[in-house]
Amino acid sequence: MTGDAPQVIPDGLVTSPRRFIAGGSYVGLKTYAPNKMDVGLLLSELPCRAAGVYTTNKFVSPTVTVTRENVAAGKVRGVFVTSGIANAGVGEQGMKDIKECLQLAADHLGVEPGELGSGTTGVIGVELPMALIRGGMSTISLSDDGGGAFARAIMTTDRVPKSAAVTFTCSGGETVTIGGCTKGSGMIHPNMATMLAFLTTDAAVDAAFLDSALRNCADDTFNMVTVDGDTSTNDMVLLLANGAAGNAEIGEGSPDAEAFAAALHALCSHLSRELVKDAEGSSKIFSVRVTGAASKQDARLAARAIAASSLVKSAIHGNDPNWGRVVCAAGYSGADLDVGKVSFFINDVAIMEAGTPIPFHRESVIAIMSRDEVALTVTLGLGEHEATAWGCELTEEYVVFNSAYTT
Amino acid sequence: MTGDAPQVIPDGLVTSPRRFIAGGSYVGLKTYAPNKMDVGLLLSELPCRAAGVYTTNKFVSPTVTVTRENVAAGKVRGVFVTSGIANAGVGEQGMKDIKECLQLAADHLGVEPGELGSGTTGVIGVELPMALIRGGMSTISLSDDGGGAFARAIMTTDRVPKSAAVTFTCSGGETVTIGGCTKGSGMIHPNMATMLAFLTTDAAVDAAFLDSALRNCADDTFNMVTVDGDTSTNDMVLLLANGAAGNAEIGEGSPDAEAFAAALHALCSHLSRELVKDAEGSSKIFSVRVTGAASKQDARLAARAIAASSLVKSAIHGNDPNWGRVVCAAGYSGADLDVGKVSFFINDVAIMEAGTPIPFHRESVIAIMSRDEVALTVTLGLGEHEATAWGCELTEEYVVFNSAYTT
Repeated sequence: MTGDAPQVIPDGLVTSPRRFIAGGSYVGLKTYAPNKMDVGLLLSELPCRAAGVYTTNKFVSPTVTVTRENVAAGKVRGVFVTSGIANAGVGEQGMKDIKECLQLAADHLGVEPGELGSGTTGVIGVELPMALIRGGMSTISLSDDGGGAFARAIMTTDRVPKSAAVTFTCSGGETVTIGGCTKGSGMIHPNMATMLAFLTTDAAVDAAFLDSALRNCADDTFNMVTVDGDTSTNDMVLLLANGAAGNAEIGEGSPDAEAFAAALHALCSHLSRELVKDAEGSSKIFSVRVTGAASKQDARLAARAIAASSLVKSAIHGNDPNWGRVVCAAGYSGADLDVGKVSFFINDVAIMEAGTPIPFHRESVIAIMSRDEVALTVTLGLGEHEATAWGCELTEEYVVFNSAYTT
Repeated sequence: MTGDAPQVIPDGLVTSPRRFIAGGSYVGLKTYAPNKMDVGLLLSELPCRAAGVYTTNKFVSPTVTVTRENVAAGKVRGVFVTSGIANAGVGEQGMKDIKECLQLAADHLGVEPGELGSGTTGVIGVELPMALIRGGMSTISLSDDGGGAFARAIMTTDRVPKSAAVTFTCSGGETVTIGGCTKGSGMIHPNMATMLAFLTTDAAVDAAFLDSALRNCADDTFNMVTVDGDTSTNDMVLLLANGAAGNAEIGEGSPDAEAFAAALHALCSHLSRELVKDAEGSSKIFSVRVTGAASKQDARLAARAIAASSLVKSAIHGNDPNWGRVVCAAGYSGADLDVGKVSFFINDVAIMEAGTPIPFHRESVIAIMSRDEVALTVTLGLGEHEATAWGCELTEEYVVFNSAYTT
């Protein structure tokens, strides 16, 4: 176990961990621009353990269905991605197309289709242009510095690619790396465009711990910017572990379990924050930390409800200390709450204590709120649990953008 | 029982039923403008049965707490309202102030404070300016055509007052009238500004039936534009029945029970629609009818999720037939859903049948969507239940408005 919180390497990639290769190419699913990619491949040169967290939306893309099946079968070591078209809402053709994509990808990579997962993202209801994908698959060349191209290949309305990595030293002295990339955009929550994240590690990790570590981590990070019940047709987070670091296999309670979980958390927390920063039309983000909750679940509910409130998001945009909207959102979140015990702070300025507003210097608070990042803290005074969610401002640009997405 | 659906009288008022009087006045809680009101009183000259539906927000205004207690005690026959300040989030002072308001109102009306309910709406966290209310209460004069002034006294960012009435003939030949007024604005859902509705009737109705009729009706009307779990600190719907029509008391299974429920439904449906039409920044509304659901609850869940989706609301604003957003919202609503059975129509144009998109003439659909009212229909193909929700477009104006509500 390491003492300090792991340092995130902002220019890390999914190919930062040993023996992962990746690449991307442009085949014409999106309007052309220099450096644009719309198909990508990621592969571990060694067999992998894989874990996934998937959308709970019942209107699910066949891409997610196939990926979940393959991950459950235990052989996944690579990923095919495409962006521009979601492969959702196209009837039975969707399953046929994604199976053909995986066959094409497997042929190109020299693996079996069952060794691949897939992420597709973009417009719903349009079939994948298979002719373009058939012609373009072989143009994807993979290399051990191809993680940047892969991260570009999952972008839709994202303004920047989002990748990072983190390392830690195992008890046996081996250095382990975890890399990852993500795409989000849309409003993220409450009904985001697809959120995808692909994570790789050269750690040796047993299957059960890999799965539980990913789930716990997603609940604290990706699911705090995107709520399970509100996910899109295509959301997923995949984690591949190939053991190339040569460490003693990490499992529940093993010496390096905590360090692995902490490193994964640091990476996913960083990527989640990058997701929010890059949300459509937003140039300003805010954190909502809820402390003193009666349970972890309550803390998460309250933090997410506040971060997702359109009225709160509008107030953040306008530098408006309308704290009533914040406590109102906590009130309808479903979290246990006693009005007389709630305190609220904007950055470190107390706005409400024990249910009673504190007179504050309005201009100072407006000045604080004008910064690029605003920290809201709500203390419920009922227990010891806490959680943090991230939100972005709601802007006029968001509306303009989303009223003309397909037209 | 009447055969036809009851006709709504658009210029009806809370004072349309016999023996109800009301009035409003301006005391200075809001910025002055001609014809502006910020306090109001409503009273039945006879004793009443009363029923209420209240916010489920745990951060509840003491105004709601007191009203609920008084209604439960069975003596409520009048209402004091004020707008501009919510009387929420002000600590213990909030309870003291609303109790004093009710005492002042009771003194002015010659009744007991326990005979009054109250609705307060506006900014959270600011104390009621009691000096203004003390001085202004006696300036409210009540009359049997004062329902219009009362409806103005509950407006906040509403652009127009919203009142209506409906009548039906009882089996004994008596004409019964139900009147009502409402205010909403804000985004309504997902986290609206306060929604208030006050309903009056001269029907004789027993207490249990009055309560169940109001609850059933609210679930189908007000709660389809504003979801229970997402209500504000101050929301409420109150229904007062004074029996002045002289009809045989209406109860569960009695001859006029169905006609009463139908009339109440027609009125509340009309008022709900007016609420949505008057939402902040919106000039266009849309209905979401979900049919073929496995249960009533599923139909409501799916309809509300679609109507509340920011992406759907933005698409409506942009006349953008991005139907993927609609089925995606149905998918995360929690309603039972089988992708292969879902059909979707914009007005009467089939966009998707049994999970497969139908090629449609894009320009025609954009033309249909450019109308002031758009009808979305989703057929789940799983059962016989249906529900309709109402939504409004999400506009740039909404964001501008809500980023500067207190600044």
